[in-house]
Amino acid sequence: MSNNSKTNTGNYFEDFRVGQEFRHATPRTLTEADAALNIGLYGSRFALNSSDVFARALGLPRAPLDDMMIFHVVIGKTVPDISLNAVANLGYAEFRWGVPVYPGDTLAARSTVLGLRENSNRSSGVVWVRSTGTNQRGDMVLDYVRWVMVHKRNPAAAVGEPVVPKTAAAVAPSDLIMPDVSMMGYDDEAAGSLYRWDDYEVGERIDHVSGYTVEDSDHMFSTRLYQNTARVHFDAHAGKNTRFGRRLAYGGHVISLARALSFNGLANGFRVAAINGGSHVAPTFGGDTIYAWSEVLEKAALPGRDDIGALRVRTIAAKDCPCDSFPGKGPDGKYHRAVVLDLDYWLLMPRR
Amino acid sequence: MSNNSKTNTGNYFEDFRVGQEFRHATPRTLTEADAALNIGLYGSRFALNSSDVFARALGLPRAPLDDMMIFHVVIGKTVPDISLNAVANLGYAEFRWGVPVYPGDTLAARSTVLGLRENSNRSSGVVWVRSTGTNQRGDMVLDYVRWVMVHKRNPAAAVGEPVVPKTAAAVAPSDLIMPDVSMMGYDDEAAGSLYRWDDYEVGERIDHVSGYTVEDSDHMFSTRLYQNTARVHFDAHAGKNTRFGRRLAYGGHVISLARALSFNGLANGFRVAAINGGSHVAPTFGGDTIYAWSEVLEKAALPGRDDIGALRVRTIAAKDCPCDSFPGKGPDGKYHRAVVLDLDYWLLMPRR
Amino acid sequence: MSNNSKTNTGNYFEDFRVGQEFRHATPRTLTEADAALNIGLYGSRFALNSSDVFARALGLPRAPLDDMMIFHVVIGKTVPDISLNAVANLGYAEFRWGVPVYPGDTLAARSTVLGLRENSNRSSGVVWVRSTGTNQRGDMVLDYVRWVMVHKRNPAAAVGEPVVPKTAAAVAPSDLIMPDVSMMGYDDEAAGSLYRWDDYEVGERIDHVSGYTVEDSDHMFSTRLYQNTARVHFDAHAGKNTRFGRRLAYGGHVISLARALSFNGLANGFRVAAINGGSHVAPTFGGDTIYAWSEVLEKAALPGRDDIGALRVRTIAAKDCPCDSFPGKGPDGKYHRAVVLDLDYWLLMPRR
Repeated sequence: MSNNSKTNTGNYFEDFRVGQEFRHATPRTLTEADAALNIGLYGSRFALNSSDVFARALGLPRAPLDDMMIFHVVIGKTVPDISLNAVANLGYAEFRWGVPVYPGDTLAARSTVLGLRENSNRSSGVVWVRSTGTNQRGDMVLDYVRWVMVHKRNPAAAVGEPVVPKTAAAVAPSDLIMPDVSMMGYDDEAAGSLYRWDDYEVGERIDHVSGYTVEDSDHMFSTRLYQNTARVHFDAHAGKNTRFGRRLAYGGHVISLARALSFNGLANGFRVAAINGGSHVAPTFGGDTIYAWSEVLEKAALPGRDDIGALRVRTIAAKDCPCDSFPGKGPDGKYHRAVVLDLDYWLLMPRR
Repeated sequence: MSNNSKTNTGNYFEDFRVGQEFRHATPRTLTEADAALNIGLYGSRFALNSSDVFARALGLPRAPLDDMMIFHVVIGKTVPDISLNAVANLGYAEFRWGVPVYPGDTLAARSTVLGLRENSNRSSGVVWVRSTGTNQRGDMVLDYVRWVMVHKRNPAAAVGEPVVPKTAAAVAPSDLIMPDVSMMGYDDEAAGSLYRWDDYEVGERIDHVSGYTVEDSDHMFSTRLYQNTARVHFDAHAGKNTRFGRRLAYGGHVISLARALSFNGLANGFRVAAINGGSHVAPTFGGDTIYAWSEVLEKAALPGRDDIGALRVRTIAAKDCPCDSFPGKGPDGKYHRAVVLDLDYWLLMPRR
Repeated sequence: MSNNSKTNTGNYFEDFRVGQEFRHATPRTLTEADAALNIGLYGSRFALNSSDVFARALGLPRAPLDDMMIFHVVIGKTVPDISLNAVANLGYAEFRWGVPVYPGDTLAARSTVLGLRENSNRSSGVVWVRSTGTNQRGDMVLDYVRWVMVHKRNPAAAVGEPVVPKTAAAVAPSDLIMPDVSMMGYDDEAAGSLYRWDDYEVGERIDHVSGYTVEDSDHMFSTRLYQNTARVHFDAHAGKNTRFGRRLAYGGHVISLARALSFNGLANGFRVAAINGGSHVAPTFGGDTIYAWSEVLEKAALPGRDDIGALRVRTIAAKDCPCDSFPGKGPDGKYHRAVVLDLDYWLLMPRR
């Protein structure tokens, strides 16, 4: 009598092959409920995702779903195949959103292995994958390269020669995908800010002021909602025997809180178009309060659009530490002890 | 390089002017998800808000959203402009619901400053505003006068002569706005009670029996869902340095719990039509259990309607104290130590 | 002045009569939000309930709502009339799902008393009811016999002769109700498993590996969402004076977690068609982590269907105890101390 033969225990480093393709399980129809939960879980206030009236004034059929939520859904689907046995999430590159996602759309995700490199201790290795989320018409909604360190099942297992893919250091502004929107009907007052792209300066720093306390119940709900099976986030019993001795909040929960907090200062950043890079600097636990601040890294005009500009923003989230002193990375390359997230991304914003 | 210039830190007392108008940010499309969350967060069982079949039997297109939820959405939108720097919420008047709100409707809110009066210590003052919530057609869904005590940024700042608006002590029954419903198809059994307007007596007291325990995760979800930015409700880190040493539950969370509990005894009170006055007598914290009881204050027939009557009800919520002993306000004008809410409102109920 | 006369305090054993019928209050329109909350609360990953595209490939109009959620809604409605004064939930029989439930359907519930038997101590008795959930067209969505032990209000009250109904020991495969689906378009990869009915063997045991930690906030949300008024689940103040000294998680919350966990090993079990029997072996509290494993008890071909088979499965959930050692019932008839749920049910699964 076989036991466990039907249980998925995830892939280990030696199970991956360069060029291998995965079609991930459980397509997901997103609905108005996901839009409401995105507000209830993170307190997001961006008008485009909150109001059908606001969205229609931009020429969209209705309010699209929050960009970060699309990321959560897509990455959640990849976990059982790619990162169930991950040691750590190492990085992202070439991370772009495609067509907007609306209630009723069904998302599916697939991944291709781009590279593999065993670690010198032979107990793990780095896996590079390109993951793509698509809607029910096959349109790309999100596409990115991610690399994770994954355990080997058997350290002695032989593996192939290292293949390390080249990825772009940042997404070029000309590669950003523009949603099909018009800024003619953009309502700054409804959006909550009179500051447009023109009003931001490179180097400008913005304290987002408020902080959101994360309860275990909250971040576990996120993880389950995105059907993310990374056990470290929702198993307190097993968590006792980890190096942290407890559950870790899903990193995406912190990203969405930081995005929601950034409304206060970046309210017209209506679309996250790309992520250039990011790091979960330290874990977040139930009971921690997340604050955030942002710095404008770069401003880019967009080819053929005089109504929308791109703002390259770095948002840093810190726990139990208000961000009016802008905690970040010191000259020694070390982060302030409160920092939990450092995210570099492109925002779209209306121009004057 | 300017810091923080784009951050909204809210208005202070000296920033307000009588006659000033605000169009509040972030219009919100409410959906079926908000209806479900209203049930999941508070356990509401009123059939009209729960069942499209029940609603259609009254001539409505489908189940309207919960009345108190409309209040939460509207007041949440006013916070960044009106009460981000509030010391205390002082009162409400002329508080009426207008047209029902259905899934798909988009609500917006605006306010006009009606009055201003500096406190004698000059560190704060009282601001009176009339706030109005409207749907996407501009129909009024909620309209009320609210007064809050707001900090001054600079106690030395000069302010104008006091202007104190007159507000009605209670909403007159003839001013209640009737939803366009027929009681012909009203199904008492589905509604959960055979008691109609005719069966209630002035002075009658009703213990609602059950109690709901509030977790921090629950009330914070409410606050975020309504995009309410009052930090005292969701920042545990900052909460440590307040006089309570912790987060306070959003008062509206307690109102909705009391309304949900009141089902047991007032199940046919299908519509909250107006609030005459109300007071958050004491704060509620995570871990508290909310019980409630009600007293019938007044019964009013409604002009031109022999099928619907208005019941003026006072509902008192108390924490960690079952309400079979009807804890309230003593002859000395002091509340029982368990009381957290005292709300005086008009309910619509079918007549025989 | 009458107090409390309008408050429902539930029926006691002596209030029931054999043949008595109840039409339970608060019909409920289920929506896309309930589908999303089912995922967010329990982490369910079954493709049929998650994706409209997957459902349409089976010939359904869209993704039906989760089967267990239908149970929660129906049983929740019966509580105020049947089990508000229950001592214990004793059993279920002849428990079958009927037509699928879709977003927009309105469910109502009714019950008929089938049997009554006073306990020898005369302080309580067993009540058997048949409860039926229907949609807005009157189609049966769920039908079952349940027996509960209910307090007497007055131990001295005279009651009738005992009537004990006969119920089937298990649901016969030929009595299972088939949803109107075609397996032609069944997508195993999207469903998350290549194992179909043919691949399972009687006696096979499957560890579902993961565990979900339950917070008080989570299980209370479930109870409220299903408008279930069993106070033991959401009143921490009253809970202090119970034999457990605290709130108990709603048993259905644990059932839904076990169902969600069972995805890992039973991913193609797209429909729970019937429950043969089940027992809440021990209470679950906030903070407990639920794991699960299953055993295949029986395989049945279905009359007239060569594309779908029925798998009789027993799923056991245990708290704070990973299930790789398959904790269950010992030869002495006693359960392993970690077991909280033992559920025997029929799953539908595609055949090769």
